[in-house]
Amino acid sequence: MSYFTEANSTDTVNGRMGAQTDARLATVMESLVRHLHGFIKDVGLTQEEWEYAIGFLTRAGQICSDERQEFILLSDVLGVSMLVDAINNRRPEGATENTVFGPFHVDGAPIRQMGDTISLDGKGESCLFEGRVLDLDGNPVEGATVDVWSDNADGYYDVQQPGIQPKWNNRGRFITGPDGRYSFVGIKPVSYPIPDDGPVGQMLDHLGRHPYRPAHMHYLVTAPGYQRLVTHTFVGNDEYLTSDAVFGVKDTLVAPYERLEGGETLWRSPFDFVLVPV
Amino acid sequence: MSYFTEANSTDTVNGRMGAQTDARLATVMESLVRHLHGFIKDVGLTQEEWEYAIGFLTRAGQICSDERQEFILLSDVLGVSMLVDAINNRRPEGATENTVFGPFHVDGAPIRQMGDTISLDGKGESCLFEGRVLDLDGNPVEGATVDVWSDNADGYYDVQQPGIQPKWNNRGRFITGPDGRYSFVGIKPVSYPIPDDGPVGQMLDHLGRHPYRPAHMHYLVTAPGYQRLVTHTFVGNDEYLTSDAVFGVKDTLVAPYERLEGGETLWRSPFDFVLVPV
Ligand SMILES: [Fe+2]
Ligand SMILES: [Fe+2]
Repeated sequence: MSYFTEANSTDTVNGRMGAQTDARLATVMESLVRHLHGFIKDVGLTQEEWEYAIGFLTRAGQICSDERQEFILLSDVLGVSMLVDAINNRRPEGATENTVFGPFHVDGAPIRQMGDTISLDGKGESCLFEGRVLDLDGNPVEGATVDVWSDNADGYYDVQQPGIQPKWNNRGRFITGPDGRYSFVGIKPVSYPIPDDGPVGQMLDHLGRHPYRPAHMHYLVTAPGYQRLVTHTFVGNDEYLTSDAVFGVKDTLVAPYERLEGGETLWRSPFDFVLVPV
Repeated sequence: MSYFTEANSTDTVNGRMGAQTDARLATVMESLVRHLHGFIKDVGLTQEEWEYAIGFLTRAGQICSDERQEFILLSDVLGVSMLVDAINNRRPEGATENTVFGPFHVDGAPIRQMGDTISLDGKGESCLFEGRVLDLDGNPVEGATVDVWSDNADGYYDVQQPGIQPKWNNRGRFITGPDGRYSFVGIKPVSYPIPDDGPVGQMLDHLGRHPYRPAHMHYLVTAPGYQRLVTHTFVGNDEYLTSDAVFGVKDTLVAPYERLEGGETLWRSPFDFVLVPV
């Protein structure tokens, strides 16, 4: 029997777990306590810093609501969301990479015909998005659902502006045929800040970081027999491409945006998605 | 320029900090991100576990109120509070050790005469607490304030039962004279559970841990020219002594409780406090 000391702290706390503790929970908690104590010892955390941390977490919790999730924002800006995404979605060479899901997806968007527009508010620069859903051998995937969503030209998702934007503005689902092709007309997305009027925004400010995400189109691509693909395509020359507040950018997800001449549609962004079998 | 990957995650997040970031904040955040990412990588945190963690923190934040601080409880049961206390209160051999402050201290308790009772509700087994406040050389410290508080015989502090317990029940302040002596009559304290009807209580349950603290008397001893001493004395034969839910027990803080015969006062607990100069 030994009491808690600075030297034995991790073992003492972990040694308190009961023998019946779920094995996975025990593994996670053991590592969590070890790293948490390691952090505190490494920096010699002061009593005042501890009090600040308690206050920060409390304020983060109290700003949370049905429309606001400050702890996800915190996870995002610390690279935690992307790290968890990366660890859980390691894919073979040639497969399309995952990125963060984000908080703005809505289930049940309208299923539209190929080539339809998803932009319902008439704002922004129109853009044709098109390409194929393929397997790792380059064969088309039939019956894939391509669920897409983006912000509008003012940088807001429809769910952030109920009553201002039309319902399902810049959202839709498209089902591939035998050729695996998808196409739809939306707008060239624009960069936008994550909600930064809470503790996480204050933290970014203290760290000299801006809250912006580079412009991106969201995709959720699903097909029977294939792993679920959650990703974005990014606009290549965005000023925030190398400083995404949530670290979501990957080299392979930067898409071409070709300027079209002479028609109503101003841009074309081709992109193929390559799925991995389950 | 390189985008975020599983391999470079820590450097990428920390590299985003601005050059003007406060040096201490940069040190703390760098270590926090490194340990947080290290934890996630070590255990291969799943998407579902991440979602559970977000939900846990959110529920913890939302149960917080003026009377309830779930993040302090979380810090307590993970040994974080004691670790921060230990790091910030390393003392020379012979000095009385610190332990956690706890959430139940109230500023401004009545200043009483030596030997007075602090038990106002007539419950519990009366106990004489007495001893000296000394410096490291064994000389008495005059003018020290000995601020004491304990739960009542039902295991609740007065602030937990407003309207049920008399105000300032089992609390008081005593000022030492030239002999450095203090003495007061309270009750032999009893063990009590930390609030366990929230997420932290659920966590303890999943870990096979009970929420009890072994019986203890709280002391805050201050004197001009000396370091502030925040400590408890524990009742030696308490069933929870070796399993304090918040890891507050130290060998040197277990006090004698001697049974007295023939008088109104049932117990005597002698204890000397040794202060360290500022
Ligand atoms: Fe987005
Ligand atoms: Fe206590």
